Amino acid sequence: MHEEDQEGGGRRCAACKYLRRRCAHDCVLAPYFPASHPHRYASVHRVFGASNVARLLQSLPVDERAQAAETMAMEAQWRVEDPVYGCTGIISQLQEEIQATQCELARTRAQLAIVPAHGAQLQGSTVALPPPPPPP
Amino acid sequence: MHEEDQEGGGRRCAACKYLRRRCAHDCVLAPYFPASHPHRYASVHRVFGASNVARLLQSLPVDERAQAAETMAMEAQWRVEDPVYGCTGIISQLQEEIQATQCELARTRAQLAIVPAHGAQLQGSTVALPPPPPPP
Repeated sequence: MHEEDQEGGGRRCAACKYLRRRCAHDCVLAPYFPASHPHRYASVHRVFGASNVARLLQSLPVDERAQAAETMAMEAQWRVEDPVYGCTGIISQLQEEIQATQCELARTRAQLAIVPAHGAQLQGSTVALPPPPPPP
Repeated sequence: MHEEDQEGGGRRCAACKYLRRRCAHDCVLAPYFPASHPHRYASVHRVFGASNVARLLQSLPVDERAQAAETMAMEAQWRVEDPVYGCTGIISQLQEEIQATQCELARTRAQLAIVPAHGAQLQGSTVALPPPPPPP
């Protein structure tokens, strides 16, 4: 690393520094993987590889590349943290959360359904009381 | 493709067929990327690359490799379908669904909260009717 820093590393992006190569002025990775975030690129490199990332970014319009680089960095980080499940581990957690919330919603709706007409009257009574029953 | 098939492609896994190489008897990709699913491997190859996939599988215990290959195939497919967002597009959708369900739950709970004591009485009335009011 020390050796790399002496080779003008300050001007190289994280990817070119990682790959120990010169960083061309038109390097497609440079704007999205700055030298200041070497670990971010390291995960992306390990999971996707430099050539796949570069090819994907080049296939996109310039204004979409930052978002694509960001989502690849997130995806790579998830795969590094969980090599078996990666992002699908997050997706499973969210699906469980949806299911739990839907169950709770169904339970609450069922409670509300027990008092349909009366509930509606009582809700109305907070605004205007219903007329009193006729005298017997 | 026709040429590959003639080269004993039937015994090569999808990865080795894709890479036009011999499939070794201990090929780490063969059990998880069979020749019968060439498109599945093509997405994985395009997104992760053969060497990254092989390295990740080799780093895992054998009994976890099938699951890892499956999640990588899903992840790759999402990235092919949505090059900018990949799996994070799915994650955003699920997060929106959670938020919508939580809002609906909060709304339903608020409706139920308007009729707390009465609601409890009315719920009880489905089992046993309250005694009639005393005659005037």
